[in-house]
Order: sequence, then C-alpha cells, then structure tokens
Amino acid sequence: MRTINNAPAFIGCESDYDKAKIVLFGAPYDGTSSYRAGSRFASTAMRTESFAIETYSPYQDKDLTDLAVFDAGDLELAFGNTARAIDEVEDFVRGVLKDGKMPVMLGGEHLVTLGAVRAVKEKYPELHVLHFDAHTDLRDDYLGEKLSHATVMRRVWDLLGDGRIFQFGIRSGDRCEFEWAKGHIYTNKFNLDTLPRVVEGLKGVPVYVTIDLDVLDPSIFSGTGTPEAGGVTFAELLGGVMALSGLKVVGCDLTELAPGLDISGVSTAVACKTLRELLLAVG
Amino acid sequence: MRTINNAPAFIGCESDYDKAKIVLFGAPYDGTSSYRAGSRFASTAMRTESFAIETYSPYQDKDLTDLAVFDAGDLELAFGNTARAIDEVEDFVRGVLKDGKMPVMLGGEHLVTLGAVRAVKEKYPELHVLHFDAHTDLRDDYLGEKLSHATVMRRVWDLLGDGRIFQFGIRSGDRCEFEWAKGHIYTNKFNLDTLPRVVEGLKGVPVYVTIDLDVLDPSIFSGTGTPEAGGVTFAELLGGVMALSGLKVVGCDLTELAPGLDISGVSTAVACKTLRELLLAVG
Amino acid sequence: MRTINNAPAFIGCESDYDKAKIVLFGAPYDGTSSYRAGSRFASTAMRTESFAIETYSPYQDKDLTDLAVFDAGDLELAFGNTARAIDEVEDFVRGVLKDGKMPVMLGGEHLVTLGAVRAVKEKYPELHVLHFDAHTDLRDDYLGEKLSHATVMRRVWDLLGDGRIFQFGIRSGDRCEFEWAKGHIYTNKFNLDTLPRVVEGLKGVPVYVTIDLDVLDPSIFSGTGTPEAGGVTFAELLGGVMALSGLKVVGCDLTELAPGLDISGVSTAVACKTLRELLLAVG
Amino acid sequence: MRTINNAPAFIGCESDYDKAKIVLFGAPYDGTSSYRAGSRFASTAMRTESFAIETYSPYQDKDLTDLAVFDAGDLELAFGNTARAIDEVEDFVRGVLKDGKMPVMLGGEHLVTLGAVRAVKEKYPELHVLHFDAHTDLRDDYLGEKLSHATVMRRVWDLLGDGRIFQFGIRSGDRCEFEWAKGHIYTNKFNLDTLPRVVEGLKGVPVYVTIDLDVLDPSIFSGTGTPEAGGVTFAELLGGVMALSGLKVVGCDLTELAPGLDISGVSTAVACKTLRELLLAVG
Amino acid sequence: MRTINNAPAFIGCESDYDKAKIVLFGAPYDGTSSYRAGSRFASTAMRTESFAIETYSPYQDKDLTDLAVFDAGDLELAFGNTARAIDEVEDFVRGVLKDGKMPVMLGGEHLVTLGAVRAVKEKYPELHVLHFDAHTDLRDDYLGEKLSHATVMRRVWDLLGDGRIFQFGIRSGDRCEFEWAKGHIYTNKFNLDTLPRVVEGLKGVPVYVTIDLDVLDPSIFSGTGTPEAGGVTFAELLGGVMALSGLKVVGCDLTELAPGLDISGVSTAVACKTLRELLLAVG
Amino acid sequence: MRTINNAPAFIGCESDYDKAKIVLFGAPYDGTSSYRAGSRFASTAMRTESFAIETYSPYQDKDLTDLAVFDAGDLELAFGNTARAIDEVEDFVRGVLKDGKMPVMLGGEHLVTLGAVRAVKEKYPELHVLHFDAHTDLRDDYLGEKLSHATVMRRVWDLLGDGRIFQFGIRSGDRCEFEWAKGHIYTNKFNLDTLPRVVEGLKGVPVYVTIDLDVLDPSIFSGTGTPEAGGVTFAELLGGVMALSGLKVVGCDLTELAPGLDISGVSTAVACKTLRELLLAVG
Repeated sequence: MRTINNAPAFIGCESDYDKAKIVLFGAPYDGTSSYRAGSRFASTAMRTESFAIETYSPYQDKDLTDLAVFDAGDLELAFGNTARAIDEVEDFVRGVLKDGKMPVMLGGEHLVTLGAVRAVKEKYPELHVLHFDAHTDLRDDYLGEKLSHATVMRRVWDLLGDGRIFQFGIRSGDRCEFEWAKGHIYTNKFNLDTLPRVVEGLKGVPVYVTIDLDVLDPSIFSGTGTPEAGGVTFAELLGGVMALSGLKVVGCDLTELAPGLDISGVSTAVACKTLRELLLAVG
Repeated sequence: MRTINNAPAFIGCESDYDKAKIVLFGAPYDGTSSYRAGSRFASTAMRTESFAIETYSPYQDKDLTDLAVFDAGDLELAFGNTARAIDEVEDFVRGVLKDGKMPVMLGGEHLVTLGAVRAVKEKYPELHVLHFDAHTDLRDDYLGEKLSHATVMRRVWDLLGDGRIFQFGIRSGDRCEFEWAKGHIYTNKFNLDTLPRVVEGLKGVPVYVTIDLDVLDPSIFSGTGTPEAGGVTFAELLGGVMALSGLKVVGCDLTELAPGLDISGVSTAVACKTLRELLLAVG
Repeated sequence: MRTINNAPAFIGCESDYDKAKIVLFGAPYDGTSSYRAGSRFASTAMRTESFAIETYSPYQDKDLTDLAVFDAGDLELAFGNTARAIDEVEDFVRGVLKDGKMPVMLGGEHLVTLGAVRAVKEKYPELHVLHFDAHTDLRDDYLGEKLSHATVMRRVWDLLGDGRIFQFGIRSGDRCEFEWAKGHIYTNKFNLDTLPRVVEGLKGVPVYVTIDLDVLDPSIFSGTGTPEAGGVTFAELLGGVMALSGLKVVGCDLTELAPGLDISGVSTAVACKTLRELLLAVG
Repeated sequence: MRTINNAPAFIGCESDYDKAKIVLFGAPYDGTSSYRAGSRFASTAMRTESFAIETYSPYQDKDLTDLAVFDAGDLELAFGNTARAIDEVEDFVRGVLKDGKMPVMLGGEHLVTLGAVRAVKEKYPELHVLHFDAHTDLRDDYLGEKLSHATVMRRVWDLLGDGRIFQFGIRSGDRCEFEWAKGHIYTNKFNLDTLPRVVEGLKGVPVYVTIDLDVLDPSIFSGTGTPEAGGVTFAELLGGVMALSGLKVVGCDLTELAPGLDISGVSTAVACKTLRELLLAVG
Repeated sequence: MRTINNAPAFIGCESDYDKAKIVLFGAPYDGTSSYRAGSRFASTAMRTESFAIETYSPYQDKDLTDLAVFDAGDLELAFGNTARAIDEVEDFVRGVLKDGKMPVMLGGEHLVTLGAVRAVKEKYPELHVLHFDAHTDLRDDYLGEKLSHATVMRRVWDLLGDGRIFQFGIRSGDRCEFEWAKGHIYTNKFNLDTLPRVVEGLKGVPVYVTIDLDVLDPSIFSGTGTPEAGGVTFAELLGGVMALSGLKVVGCDLTELAPGLDISGVSTAVACKTLRELLLAVG
Repeated sequence: MRTINNAPAFIGCESDYDKAKIVLFGAPYDGTSSYRAGSRFASTAMRTESFAIETYSPYQDKDLTDLAVFDAGDLELAFGNTARAIDEVEDFVRGVLKDGKMPVMLGGEHLVTLGAVRAVKEKYPELHVLHFDAHTDLRDDYLGEKLSHATVMRRVWDLLGDGRIFQFGIRSGDRCEFEWAKGHIYTNKFNLDTLPRVVEGLKGVPVYVTIDLDVLDPSIFSGTGTPEAGGVTFAELLGGVMALSGLKVVGCDLTELAPGLDISGVSTAVACKTLRELLLAVG
C-alpha cells in the first residue's frame, strides 16, 4: 500500500500499523470540484495543525493516546483521471479492511467516499451509510459526468439501493434531487434532529459514516468550496458524532475542508477537533 | 435607463425585461462610507458567485426559475457627487415602477435606499418601511453632511413622517439616536422578535423592505464595513424574510455587502442566498 | 510610569490621569505563545479600530463618556525576557493601584495577567479571580518553562491558593489539568451557566476578572492564536460581563486578540465592543 | 458552439462575432493542477477586472477599440474528465478557425493549450509554437497520466515533432526533461534573450503563441499555482509580446493565472494588461 | 486648524508646532476612487507602521531626528461631499504656509493634491509641479464629474497653465489624454530618465512635488487601487526623491497607498520609507 | 539530540543520518522579534511546500538527490526563555559537528544564528562569517536585552572579534550601528557588489554563512517581519549563493521567513529554492 508521508502523523495517532485498530489516511483529490478547489490540501494541513489541539477530549473524557491509530499518510493520487483515483482509494481501503482494521479517511472532495464505500460494501454487504452534508449530492450526472462530487451519494445508492442512506443537515440541491430522494433515501433537512432515532434503528448494523464538513454552518467552517449558510453548529455536530458511539461503525471519513480558503486557521482547527471526537467516538 | 452589464445576470434571473415582474439592479455606490468602503463591488460579486448556489429553495419549496426576474445590471454612478448618485437611483426606480414592475436593488452602501424610497413613495404615498439593520442610521447629519449612510433612515423619515418606519435588529447608535427614535419610529432592538406582530399590522399596506445585511451577526457575515457583534443568525433573518410573503411588498433592497473584506467568499454566498429567499418570498 | 503612545486613546477614554477612576493600558507581550503569535498588536489595533464603534451601549444604556477613563498607552516591554516583562506589568499596575485607580489591561498573551494579579493581590490579599477562557492554562510547566501562557492560571494559583479561582467556558486542556483542577479551583466547563450563582457568592469580595477572548467561539472571534470550537456566543459573554456589575471588581483584563489573524477586522471589533461593555459594567 | 457568459466582455472586445477577426474565449479547466489550483477562475476575473485598465496602449500607441474582437465567454468544461475537456477546447477552436478568425484563449491550466494546438495544427500543418514559461512541461507522463499540465509541451511535440517548439524563460524542470529537450526542441533558459533571433527565423511561418504567465517573476505575478523565482520582468515580457507583431500568429493563449492566490488583484491586472498588449501586437 | 490625532506621530516627527519647519498631515479622503478605495486609511497605517523603520537613512546619511517636523494628525473630512473636502485641505495648507512652514500631505486619493496646490499657488504664483504617477490624471471630467482622482492634474493645469507641470513614470491613460498632454505639459513616459535635466531647469523656482505612489511597480507596491505593471523600481524612485534636494520645494505629498490591499504590510513600509527619504531630501 | 518531526523531510533530503554529510534542521524560535513574528513556522512551511519545487537546479546543473542530506526535523524550543533556546541550538550544532557533518539551519528569527556560531567557533577558532541581511543587527542591546534579533551580529562579534564579519545588502540600521561598524566589521551596503572580492580573500578559511532572507527585496520576499525596500533581486542572491561554492563553508543558515505574512506562498517558495541552491553550492 503506497502512501506518501508529506506531513507528520496526526497528533496522538502514532501507533504502529500492526498494533493499530484504526488506519487514518488522506485521499487528497479534488479534481471534480465544480467551484473553489483546495480540499486536496486538507489532510496535510490537518496533520500540521493538529499540534495546536490536545489529545484529550473533555466532552467524552477520553484521550487519543488510549486508542491505537496508525496514520498512513496520503495516497498519491494523480489529478485528471478521476476514475483511477477512486479505484486507488478503493484498493487502499480494501487492504486496510483485509488486515482487520477500520479505515478513517480524510478527503479531498466528497467523491473519494465512493472508493471507500465500494471496498467497505464488499466486506459488509449489509452496509448502511450515515451522511452529514449541506448538499444532497444526488445528481445522476453533472455536466455529463457520472463521477463528481455532486453525484457521489447517487453512486453510493447505485451500490447500496433503497433504504440504506440516511442524510442529515441537507439544505441545498436542485428540486429534482429532493424529489428523487423521497422515494429512495432518508433525508433530514436542515438539522440533525432525527439522528438519535435513526441511530437507534441502526444498532448492530454495519455503518459507514461520511461527514462532508460543509454540513457545519460557514460561520464556524468557512474553509470549504461551496459554503452554505444555515448549517449546524459545532455543538450540534459534536452531539451527532458522540451519538455514533453506540453504533457498529466500520469506516468513516471527513471531507471538503479547503484550508486555503480560511486563512485564520479556524476551519482546519475545527476539522482537527472533529476528527479527534470522531476517533474517540468510534474507536 | 442606462445601466452597465459588468457581470452576468444573477442565477435564475434571466427573464426578458418585458415579461419580467421584478427588476433586479445594482447601485454600486459607497461614497459616504465613513469606515471601510467596498460595497460598490457587491452586485458584481453576487452575480459572479451566484452560480455556486441553486435556484431552488428547500425552505420555501420554490424555484427562481418559476419567477420572472430581469437583471438590469448596474447603474453607472459617479463617485464624489452623492446627491447626483441618489438622484440617478431615484430616476431608475421611477422608470421601473412606471412599467409596472417591482424594483429590487443591490447596494452599495445603505444611502442608496433613499433614492429608491423617494421614487416608491411617489407612487405609493401610504408607503411604510421595514428596516433590518445593526445600526439606527438616524443621525440628522454626519460631520455636517445630510446625505450619509449614517443618516439614511432619518432622510427616509423626512419623507414618510412618524409611525411609518419599523426597525429590527438594531444594536448600535449614539444615545441621541435611540432617544429620538422613541417618538418617531418603531424600534425592535437586538432581534426580530416582534416582526410577526408588525407584519400582521401591515397587511395590505404598501411596504418597502430595506435589509442592511450587517443586521446579521458578523460570525456569518464578516464582509461589511462596520461589523457589529450580537446580530441575528442566518436562520433568524431567513425566518424574517419568509414572513414577508404575506405583505404587499412594492420594492426592496439588500445593502452593505463589502465582498473584499471576506476573502473566504462566505459573506457573498450569504448575500446571494438571502437574495434568492427574498425574491422567492416577495415575487 | 513609562508607556508609549503608539496609537490614540481608545474611544471615549480621554480623561486626564488625575481625574480618572480607571486606567486602561496595553501590555503588548506575546513572547511565550506556543502557536500563532500576534497578540502584541492587540492594543494598538483596538485603539485604532475603536472609532468604528459607538461610546453608547444600548445593552446597558450607559455611555463611555459618562466614565472617567485614562488610556495610558502601551507598556514598552522587551521581547525575549519573559520574567522581566511580567515584572514590568506588575510595577505599572502597582502604581495605578497606589493612585487609587482601577487597572484595566489589554494583552498581549494571557501570561501578562500574572503581573497584574501579583500587584492586585498585594493590595487586596483576599483577592478572587474570575477567569473566562477556552483553555485551562493550568500546566505546572510548559516544555520546562514555568512562565508560559499555558501555565498562567497555575502561577496565579501559586499566589492565591485553593478556592479562589473560578473558571468559565473551559473546553481544552490535557487530562492532568482537568484532574488537578478538581481539587483546587472551580471549573465550569463549556459555558457560563453557573456564573450567576458564583457571582452571588462573591458579592463584596475583591475580584480580578481576566477574559481570555478565546472563550468566545471562533465563529465570532477567529483572530486568536489557538481557536477552539464550541465556545460561548457573543451574547453569552455579554451577559457574563454585565453580570459583573454587582461585584467589587478591582482590576480586569482582556487578552489573546491577535488582530492579524482575522483580516476582516471582526475580531478586533468584537474585542472593542467587549471592552466597552466591560468598562461600563465595572466602571 | 456552446459557451457560457458568466462575465461581461473583456474591455474593448465588444465586436459582433460576424465582424470579428479575433475570437477571445475562456477555457476554465484546472483539473490536473498538481499543486494549488484556481486557474479556472482566471477568465472571469480578468473580464471583471479589465475595467480597471485602459483600452489604449502607450507602448504600442494602439487601442483595442481599433480592433474587432469578439469575447465568446467561457467554454463549459466538466471537471474530472480531462480528455473530454481537451476535446471540447479542440472543437471550439476548430469552429473559430473554420470561420476564418483567430482564436485567443484564456486558461485555465496550461494543458488546455493542447486542445487548441490540435485544431490549429489541423489547419496549419507547418505550425510552430512559441512557448513562454517557467517550467519545461516536457514530462512524458506525470504519476502515470499522459494528460497533465506537466506534460503539455511533450504532447504538443507528439503532434509537431522536432524543431517546431521554441521555449523561453524556462527555469524549472527535472534533469531528464532538460536532457530530453536538447535533442528535440529549442530552449532559452532563464530569459528571452534570443527571442529576436528566433522571431526573425520564423517570419512567414504560421505560429501559435502560448504564454504560461508564470514565466513572469513572482514578484509581479504571485497569483499562480507554482510560482518560480527568477523570472522575467513585466517589461521583458512586454518586449517579447511586442516582438511578435512581425509574425504570422494564427492563435495564442494566456494560461495559469490563479486570481484567488493574489488578493491584492495585481496578478489579474497584469494578466489583463498582457492580454491587451498581446491582442494589439497580433491583431 | 482642526485635525484628529487618531494615531501617534510618524516616527521622528515629534517636533512642537512652533519649532517645526515642516508640518506633516493626513488628508484621508478617497471618495472619488473609481475602483478599489481604501487610501483613506493610509496616513493612520503609516504612522502605526513607521515604528518598524529607522529614522536614519544610510542613503542620504541623514536622520529624521535632525529635522523639525510636526505631525498634525489627520484632517477630519466628510465623505460624500468632494468639493468641501478639497476646500478643507486648501484651508489647512493655507494656514501652514501662513505660519511659514512647509506642508507635507499624506493622501488619501490623488484628488487631495488639488486643495494643497490651490493654497500653495496663492502664495507662490510662479509655482511649478513635479508629478510622479502611473496615470496621466488629465481627463477633463470623469463620468461628468470635474473633481475626480482621474482629473486632478487637469484641474491643477487649470490653475497653473501650460509649461508648469512635469510628469514622470506615466504609463496609463486614454489616447485623448496623451494627445492633449503634448501641447500643455511635459510628460516623461514609463520612467524618470529625464528628471535630472528637468530638475536642473527648475533650480530656484518654487516647486510642489506630488507623488502618486502607484508610479512604483506593483511588484513593490501592490497596495493601491489601480495597480499598473511596468512601473519604476524603489531604487529609481529613491533616486528621483534624492534628486529633489537641490530644488526649492515649497510643498509635497504622497498619495494612493491603500494599506488594506496589501496585507503583508510591504506597501505601507514602502510608503513610510519613501516619506522618510522625501522629508530628508526637502527638509 | 531531540528533535520533533512535525513535517516531512525537505524534498531531496532523505538521506540516513549516518550517511549524511549535511544535517538540515529547524530552529523555530521567534521570541525576540520586535515586530511581526511568525518565523517559527518557516521550517515546517518550507518542508511542506518543498514538493512544489524540483530537486534539480538548471542554474548549477546539480541535483539534491546527488547529495547526502539528512533532515533532522525541528528542535523543540521553549518560548519565553531566549537564553535557553540559544543554548539548545548550540548543543544540537555541537553534536552535528562532532559527528563530522555540516549543519544547515532553518530559522526562526536571526538570533538563532548565535547558538550555531558558538558551536562552530568552538570547532573552528579561525571562523569567519558571511552575513547577508537588510539590517545591520549590530545594536549592543535592544530595550535593555543583550539577546535579540537586533543584536545578533554584535553578539557574534563578541565571539569573533574585528575583521571576521562581512556584511552584504545592508540598508537599515540606526546611525550608531553604521558608525560602530566602520571600525570592526566589513559592510557592503545596499548590494553584493564586492562579494566576489571578499570570497577570493576567504579561500581556505572556515566560513559560516548566515542569510537573513530579508536581504531580498520585499517585492520577491514579502513574508518577513520587517520588510525593507531596496533589496537585492533573487538573481543577485542566487549569484551570491553560487559564489560560495569555492569556499570552505562549515555551516550555514537561512532565517526570517515568516510564511503567514505572504499568503500567496511565494516567499516560502523563494526560501525553498534558495535553500536548494545553497545546499547544492556548499554540499
């Protein structure tokens, strides 16, 4: 499994591969971003900035140093060939799963989720997906392309079928996407209000969690390509993440941080803190 | 009516003039800004960035493509001669109203509202004004000048008289402004709590709506000349905008976006989304 | 008392020294900042930007022009010698107190609080400290150094002992700090919920108030070295500040604004408004 | 020929298509950028900012208003499918040439040049290429991909063969690229010193001119993905552009402006001025 | 003479008014800026940042502390009434001249020069003007307005007539401006090459020097509203400034720094250094 | 020797320690910076950004992959205790020298040079220093502190004595520093003109090279705390660096990059390229 280590391990994720239960890795691809790109730099920025947060969470009273996380660095993905990049993500995740470890992926744009879900679905045919996002991502194609950040959840639906995808925080899409969604997936618009009930219903089932960080309100997360006002607060997302601790999470990802768009560094710090809480909740 | 098209039409506002019920136009003047200027670039930035939002609103379940909006581009206003610029806004709005269409203006600084209100008042003598803002804008003069962004609502009061202006979200002004306001206009400080009651009382009356976008908290709208903490959330403003749908709105504006002050692009995106919801609410 | 006036007085703080009841001054030191520095520029930026706010508070219905505040400018502190810088802060505050005036300090990093507390404790042996912050600041040393922004409240505890320090808004620290705190100080994690009760219990007792502005959520205060999501809103901090009006406050400070990290100017404007409200509450 | 007009015409380029001798268009693709992307926004930014320059050149004593240039807007290129995007550029340029007009393309990343050269070569089999750049762009593949901004001139060589490509300003590449170049193309490293001689030798031959704007020193052009110190000054590039006036130029392009990386606006202004001079030199 | 001191004195300019030979003051007006405004903040930024330069010039081997310069602070100019603002500049300069001191003005936009020249011409009817700029500024009106940054030198010509204005560094204007200039003023395009000869010819004559800082190349001075590539280097401008030391300079100004457009601080530092050298050359 | 690897190795510097002839390391201290700090982030930023340059130099026709450079990461230096930080640099360099390798240090502020020179002088008593800088750095103390970025070369002189220090590019300092320098060190003001002659004279002598990157003109290097116009071009510095290849260089450093001050990334890219050329020249 070829990765490039162009940054240190994320803070508190210095386990050896062999001992690790979780494998953290970056998938720095943003080749289909239709607006401001830059999420390719997310994983590097997060590792560098992770030293400004603590490994301890006063919310969960847990510490990253109690887990065994191996930070594999970044996949080396070629720009300009989207299909191949997604395949490479899939291959890497397959290897991680084969070794009995849980993959935690840092995007990149949201499309990288497709590669991970392909591999996870292979191992867990009963896979369900929890999806936090501002956007539906349910177009069937985008300017004629099937593989796009705007189509990723439709491609995931191609794999999983009806009743397996649960969206939260959604507040943007075209009319057709919302119409289509009604018959095929579960959509909680605007907030995470029904998450506890959904989580209750998914107990014991293998779940993949994909967090497009633009589910957050841009007041706290401006560093993303298509900011969409009216999002959830950090406290709400934190609550959502902690709610995952009762689930059988078999893989997860954080996507769409574009660190260069927020020069104050706040967005990257938010992503780091979200990752810490996510690792502590599912680890 | 001379305008300059220095950007494409705002997304979903591609109607012909003849068929249009709403005429959107920019008034890119910020010549009296006493602090950071830059709102002259708001309308151009909003048109360019509008392609990053959708035409469909999941909040109102309406779509801009169902309306008939003509985007007239920007008025060509000379800097350095404030009185003339305001006159030119007035003339343009008069023409729009004469053709039986509703004017929707993008500032520029808040003073451009005066030109619009002059023309609207001429057609609708019973005009009332709903005013969303962080600042009272009620000074009688500012450093000796009668025409200023800091005096605009006082000039509007000169036209309309007592009991016609309703302010919401106000959280900054000098002591005298607040004192004067008590006898002449309605002021809801800090939030929009009494808006539903006020809207109820204005049913059937011609209403002009002026939104100084700095009514929003600077956490979500940092791109403005005089940011003032403690403002309303986007959700609160959205609620306020949707509440307007029952009113007889005869004109409206959005002012004081200074796009260059928020290089993340969030403020411009917020302004675009607010405009979409405003158009859908009053269109 | 040597200070340098490298900016005008803060708006509304133009009293003569002799008539002043409050002495405002800057302590532009950030030499121990372990991450992004820049708080040394806070006091200068605040004075310059203060002209964009009003002297009147509609929240408290008071005006800075009703107080008598002398703005002494900034202490001239040498970088690279932390112990000496803290001593110089202490000396200056001692002088202010000797003249029967209340010191209000603008940091700089949080460590400057130590110098002020030393002098205030000397005059008021029964001193208690109210501490608003995102971080515990309770390490005994940081990379071997006893004097650090990360140890400042531990050093204050060295002076005051158990039961004298009351922390609010805390949401970051290492596990040991939280453990240690339990036996020695009062900690209200995440918010200010118990502040009213604590204030009630401190009536009549001399209190020093230290506000690390990163207690605010970074959505409204991104201009700080170590932003920490999940903080209090401006409205919550404003409520906390206004609650201080019933206390016997004998000194206070605002620290950790790093104006260069937020080029929109919002963070500086927030700090200015917080200072206005603080002065009006304790003045 | 489908284009999208998401900005006004570039200043002075308001001719009708039928009367135009030159067709200006944007190719906003940056999908293979291996480092900081953002050149997709170049053409829109240039049109908007073009109103800050004059149409008249005191260097050439000519005026854009004397030419007949049609600004066709931008091609709508899908991200994530590089081969298709290049094909679409090729198709558009073929149409322009068929109508007997000269294509002038605004990138986008440098790879878009390949599409244009394909179409131009078809019409002018004797085509030669003048190439201004900091980078050799001569890799045979980049991370396994044949179509990349780092391989574009190698792909052009595939079309044209030895002795047809003349590079100027080159100061970065790997050792192999420089070695390979020796046998196949002409390379003037570091500056434009031999340009007059090369131009002399190309009199009467059809020439395509491709200017990667990072040939400029980053002191004057910081807004580009891979800035490389030691480049030519604006005066030198201007001299180079004016030297083209004696050639039979049959197409040209400007690429690799990434406007968001230079928030002062200087880089975009430089690109606008370079385009004006280029149009006046070859028009 | 009313000024506001919203910043400390410029470094080394702490003389008393009575002893001063030079009076430095700010004219923070940018109300007619047709593009990016912000020069109103130049004088404040320069005073604050001046502490990062030394008072000593190794170029001239002189020190600001050897001169007697009084920094009067900024004129309080109302935005939105251009004619009045220019009058206020004129009044202030008249007072300075009446007291036998030399005025040195910090803009603001270039139009403020008109007010100063009016007053200086009154005292020195034989006044000549040396003008450093990227732009001709010779339009007779701009969008119908006679008072504009784009017309300022034409207004100065109205006062002085033919043969009195000498322009250097000019590289932008419309064709008509360059045509008109030929019969009325002296223009050295692109550089300062003929300055020594012109200076020689002006020995003994009263000269006003106006430096629009955009005469500098934007590589070293990006913080200005309309950057124009191809300007002079700092070394060239420094040479030009030092050449003034043999002239009878009776007033001068620096205009068009817009500090907010260059967040690195370089442009403000350049302006400070230029002012130091200018003061040392003419003081 | 304790270092922290909070970034990958600089490109092309992946040798093992044992085989390495050069040891590259970071000294991220900026605790005495009197103005804008931030150089503590230089080494991390350079390592991350180094992947945007090539390992091959077309200037010297050499490649970093031909050398044996070990990148040791960064020293972990405590802020707030300057003397201890300098000692830690000294200790690390002593170890490197003891192992027979050449130390190449990335600042941090210029004061870190003192620690390195102490250790190098110990091994090479005949040490001479070549110093590239905008500033003299010759104060005996700064605000009473002996250890400061403004005193570093004076402290180096304390160690080496007269005739051992050769400064180039100097253009800022107070009058006393320039006076003092005349009797004790060699100063080439403004440029590097006499460097070839000086190099000739130092053949065979052990030389330490310290490059304060602000010797470069801020047009190409804006990312530094105290930018000083009138500096050398990149080409001139490159020439200076290549001239070192004939010397017996026993240690060197690059200091004063503050990456956060230049958000375009150009300054960091310039520092990376300078480091590559320096390594190739002395390696």
